[in-house]
Amino acid sequence: MAANIYDVIMLFGDSITQAAWTTGGFGAVLTNMYSRKLDVLNRGLAGYNTCWAIPVLEQCLATLQGQQHVPKIRMLVVWFGANDACIKPSPQHVPLPNFIENLKHMVWLVHSPESPYYSPSTKIILVTPPPVNTHQWGGNLASRDPPLALDREFETTRAYAKGVIEAAVVSKVSVVDVWTAIWKAAGEEEVALSKYLSDGLHLTPDGYTVMYEALMQTIQMEHPELHYDNLLYAFPRWDEIDWANPRPSVQKGA
Amino acid sequence: MAANIYDVIMLFGDSITQAAWTTGGFGAVLTNMYSRKLDVLNRGLAGYNTCWAIPVLEQCLATLQGQQHVPKIRMLVVWFGANDACIKPSPQHVPLPNFIENLKHMVWLVHSPESPYYSPSTKIILVTPPPVNTHQWGGNLASRDPPLALDREFETTRAYAKGVIEAAVVSKVSVVDVWTAIWKAAGEEEVALSKYLSDGLHLTPDGYTVMYEALMQTIQMEHPELHYDNLLYAFPRWDEIDWANPRPSVQKGA
Repeated sequence: MAANIYDVIMLFGDSITQAAWTTGGFGAVLTNMYSRKLDVLNRGLAGYNTCWAIPVLEQCLATLQGQQHVPKIRMLVVWFGANDACIKPSPQHVPLPNFIENLKHMVWLVHSPESPYYSPSTKIILVTPPPVNTHQWGGNLASRDPPLALDREFETTRAYAKGVIEAAVVSKVSVVDVWTAIWKAAGEEEVALSKYLSDGLHLTPDGYTVMYEALMQTIQMEHPELHYDNLLYAFPRWDEIDWANPRPSVQKGA
Repeated sequence: MAANIYDVIMLFGDSITQAAWTTGGFGAVLTNMYSRKLDVLNRGLAGYNTCWAIPVLEQCLATLQGQQHVPKIRMLVVWFGANDACIKPSPQHVPLPNFIENLKHMVWLVHSPESPYYSPSTKIILVTPPPVNTHQWGGNLASRDPPLALDREFETTRAYAKGVIEAAVVSKVSVVDVWTAIWKAAGEEEVALSKYLSDGLHLTPDGYTVMYEALMQTIQMEHPELHYDNLLYAFPRWDEIDWANPRPSVQKGA
């Protein structure tokens, strides 16, 4: 069985999080940069909206009674909206006010003393969905057999991105505005988004790089104690070991 | 705090494991392929030999008393030898018989009913170190300030690779022979190893790909129940959720 060695960064989101360990994905980059300091956990769920994700999040968090046995979540990155912003009659659609309430409820689950999952030391970062390139995504859906109608709109996803920022402000947690970062990187031109979106919805390695850099900037500015440069190795560097009597010097945090 | 959701694959080794989440690294690829099925944990320790690693492994394994609270290690991948094979007077050098005994002891820690970390259901896979390209690695060391003498030899690392196979056979666990796989991929020419080794010692993305494919072949042949194709999602696909009443259907393993 795996003993608890490192505290964790939990990445909770939809397919864009689930795929974050593909080439250039921000999950893989974080795992590498935080190696020997924090574990990075993939809690991505392709296709999920925030309504379906809330009962999963409850299962991913330990209750107060269970917290002594499990790793501490130092940072929880919550990244939804790409599916909630589907337009009707998509079953993935969540009305914007409900979406905002769902995000606030996720923060409540971790930050409210009344929650059974209360963990005040966990830093939460909400992330806005990327912009949609409806030309790419519409072509993708139209090419399927049978062809599907466009289920997402540029302006709708933009509104959901603003909803994430609203939820973060009200809940007093950090926000990484990936929507704006990618939109600016594309020169505010929808067709130019194809550099950052593989199919108009999911991210390319370049898209993940924009996300990673925005996330690290937020960590540096708002939670510098969680920047990898400010965390120590749990076990010593090999040239710090007492080679004549190694065992005491390789105890965790020795 | 992070509740236990997925069982784990633990990658335990030296710098070649620690760096396995860089681009093309086998840790990142495993994390992606096993998403929503198993967590993949980075337990790599750059520069470590097996003598220093044993007391760390003891800390990474839960004792029998602690096992009920922590995730099950379904697969433990143990990859050492690149540092143990350093030649004297390197402090990283471990004599070949001791190296083999250390690997056998690591297996004992998990598979012996007399070990406090006994976990018979954990599948162990030992991995041989990659071949050394002494032309590349010697040039790397010579270019440092001050220049360093060559500390690894082609034939010595080959002997340690054979030692890993011996330890696996005696301990009755699986082995992935990365040494031979990369050597064959390079046409059995030392200078051609530069396609698979970035500096003569560490792996390029191509080197990691050879390792990943050899590992998955071993899993498919010897532990097919642990192949990602044979594991279920812990949480349902989004189109399997009962949209009218989602909560019961997204309970883990529902």
